[in-house]
Amino acid sequence: MTGPGAEERLARAALTRLAEPGDETVGRWLREMGAPALVRGLTGAGPPPKGARAERLAGCRARAETLDPVLDLKTLARLGGRFLCPGDTEWPTQLDDLGDARPFGLWVRGSPDVRLWALRSVAVVGARACTDYGSHVAALLGAGLAERGWAVVSGAAYGVDGAAHRGALAAGGATMAVLACGVDVPYPRGHTELLERITRQGLVLAELPPAGHPTRSRFVLRNRVIAALTRGTVVVEAEYRSGSLVTARRARELGRHTMGVPGPVTSGLSAGVHELLREGAELVTDADDVTELVGGMGELAPPRRGPVVPRDLLAPAAAKVLEAIPGTGGADPSRIARDACLSRDHAVARLYELQALGFVERQGDQWRLPAPAHTPATAPASTSVTPKPPGRHPGMRRGGA
Amino acid sequence: MTGPGAEERLARAALTRLAEPGDETVGRWLREMGAPALVRGLTGAGPPPKGARAERLAGCRARAETLDPVLDLKTLARLGGRFLCPGDTEWPTQLDDLGDARPFGLWVRGSPDVRLWALRSVAVVGARACTDYGSHVAALLGAGLAERGWAVVSGAAYGVDGAAHRGALAAGGATMAVLACGVDVPYPRGHTELLERITRQGLVLAELPPAGHPTRSRFVLRNRVIAALTRGTVVVEAEYRSGSLVTARRARELGRHTMGVPGPVTSGLSAGVHELLREGAELVTDADDVTELVGGMGELAPPRRGPVVPRDLLAPAAAKVLEAIPGTGGADPSRIARDACLSRDHAVARLYELQALGFVERQGDQWRLPAPAHTPATAPASTSVTPKPPGRHPGMRRGGA
Repeated sequence: MTGPGAEERLARAALTRLAEPGDETVGRWLREMGAPALVRGLTGAGPPPKGARAERLAGCRARAETLDPVLDLKTLARLGGRFLCPGDTEWPTQLDDLGDARPFGLWVRGSPDVRLWALRSVAVVGARACTDYGSHVAALLGAGLAERGWAVVSGAAYGVDGAAHRGALAAGGATMAVLACGVDVPYPRGHTELLERITRQGLVLAELPPAGHPTRSRFVLRNRVIAALTRGTVVVEAEYRSGSLVTARRARELGRHTMGVPGPVTSGLSAGVHELLREGAELVTDADDVTELVGGMGELAPPRRGPVVPRDLLAPAAAKVLEAIPGTGGADPSRIARDACLSRDHAVARLYELQALGFVERQGDQWRLPAPAHTPATAPASTSVTPKPPGRHPGMRRGGA
Repeated sequence: MTGPGAEERLARAALTRLAEPGDETVGRWLREMGAPALVRGLTGAGPPPKGARAERLAGCRARAETLDPVLDLKTLARLGGRFLCPGDTEWPTQLDDLGDARPFGLWVRGSPDVRLWALRSVAVVGARACTDYGSHVAALLGAGLAERGWAVVSGAAYGVDGAAHRGALAAGGATMAVLACGVDVPYPRGHTELLERITRQGLVLAELPPAGHPTRSRFVLRNRVIAALTRGTVVVEAEYRSGSLVTARRARELGRHTMGVPGPVTSGLSAGVHELLREGAELVTDADDVTELVGGMGELAPPRRGPVVPRDLLAPAAAKVLEAIPGTGGADPSRIARDACLSRDHAVARLYELQALGFVERQGDQWRLPAPAHTPATAPASTSVTPKPPGRHPGMRRGGA
């Protein structure tokens, strides 16, 4: 594997245990000193970071006593997972927009390529104690986005999060759970089976090391990863002061699309969404509305992120899947999996990666090659950047009175 | 009565029968020729308007055969009504914003002063075939606006319109129905009793002369009067192509506040409102939201409309009502009516007029004198104009996360 060396990876894995996610002071030290020197400085094995206060260093040293990043990496490997660092080809460079609050690394379970899925992803978040209306809308959105070839990102919580994940899974689509605990921690307990399904068919990500437990502040910090990872955040039901609104506001600060699904004004669970809409979030009512906003092809590959991989550099499994797509017409994932000699889940994972690269398109249950004009040569056309339209006028689309 | 003379009034009354409401060509001729000469020109008793086409003149002459404005004025007088013209002190000068589409005059039933009520009015409109949610929200808004001292304007149609009127009436408040037919026509038939109540407790207005019947185009044209008369229009439930959206868009064109109440995205009856919100209308969830938008005191009396009447020029009934307000604390309308020796309905009508002038305030069921700083001397402070704030941040008001 290219990218960061073993020492860098080990040091960053250690940092996920030494510091809290999103700690911008540690992020700045990391930028200034590099990971290995910073870990030495925080554990007492080297000069401490400039200006580090005694109590902070004491806290790190306390944590250092149980530090064993080699064991953590082994734990993940045993679960079929991995630890991603900036510089890895699979690193989702969208997270770099977080600046010094960028995750030190990402603990990952699931076979799909995180970077490629994230390129074409939307977050669907909302209230834990949602109404039937909220879970209905979240499931429809999850399914609709998956059917249109988008990865559905959420936090695996009860309520809206779970409904969005389930909707995407039910549509045989791509979904990513970003946890506020370790990727090996089944939290919430009632979602153990859902998390297993996401691990099998999609991706489970976390900043926290294995066995890391969720805390209130970690939920809030996790939200910034959801916001940064995706092209936009849709809020489905939220009360006035809710974590979902925090995610949406972070998304806006990061220049992502911020969207809200309205609901009855008689429902306190829609009050937060209405608040968000008044702050300028876009009102969306279905998956078409969402993809219309986030889906400008030119936006798929943001600027300054380099070209997406050319066809002859595709990973072998992805190349096999691409080969299995018929020259004309489409094929369903089962047939593609059979022709590519892969499991269905793995084939679907590759298909979404290929779609992010512009090699294939999903239409309903069928995957097909795109029309010739869109076929990428070496670098797909989607790396060019077209400006985001200044506004939308659905009235023109739908022909309002 | 000051204002236009008898000939002018008679000619304008005739015009409401000769031409369709909102006919801008006729409006231009009216501006160029004056009402009496225009009526002569359209009825063949004088030179026709410059550039008038033969078929239009023929149509007017056909209508002229049954023309009897004296009878129309008598009919209204017999019903206890009147015919208002531009120049009358009771003329709602907001309508002048319609330019050449300004009504030729207004046929009115009900005792309150149209100009004063309109100064502090909000339109609540929406679907005829609304859901329980829509009628619930409309009734709450109607009642809430009335309780806050605002006149609720609507079209007396089934559904949202009726619920809004009823909500205002139930709160003992002010409501105005603007009809697309004559003020003596009980349309829709099922609202006969509601219209009678509005006539008794509020105002019924129309551009059409007595016995005028509603047509499709007259509904659309009526909507411009609702939009122009009020400080803003709230849409509660509307399908994609609906008259309520036309009203709201007219309101926006006229610089009025355009507001929408969101609803479930699973309801086709909220789809039009969501469309409107995406076009930039303000999202409102209750009467507080509405009054926050439309209620800047400085906006009450728009510029270039002259001072509102000073206290010693109040009509005798209004002066009696003002006398009946206790110096400290408040009083309910029944007590005020008793002290002023007026019927309760008449006392309420005067109270809303006095409120528009800044002399009194409604708080819940109580009417009181405003705090000293707000008491008008000769012309109320509300004639000064403060600029509309650039935006609102309800999060600051409600303290969002």
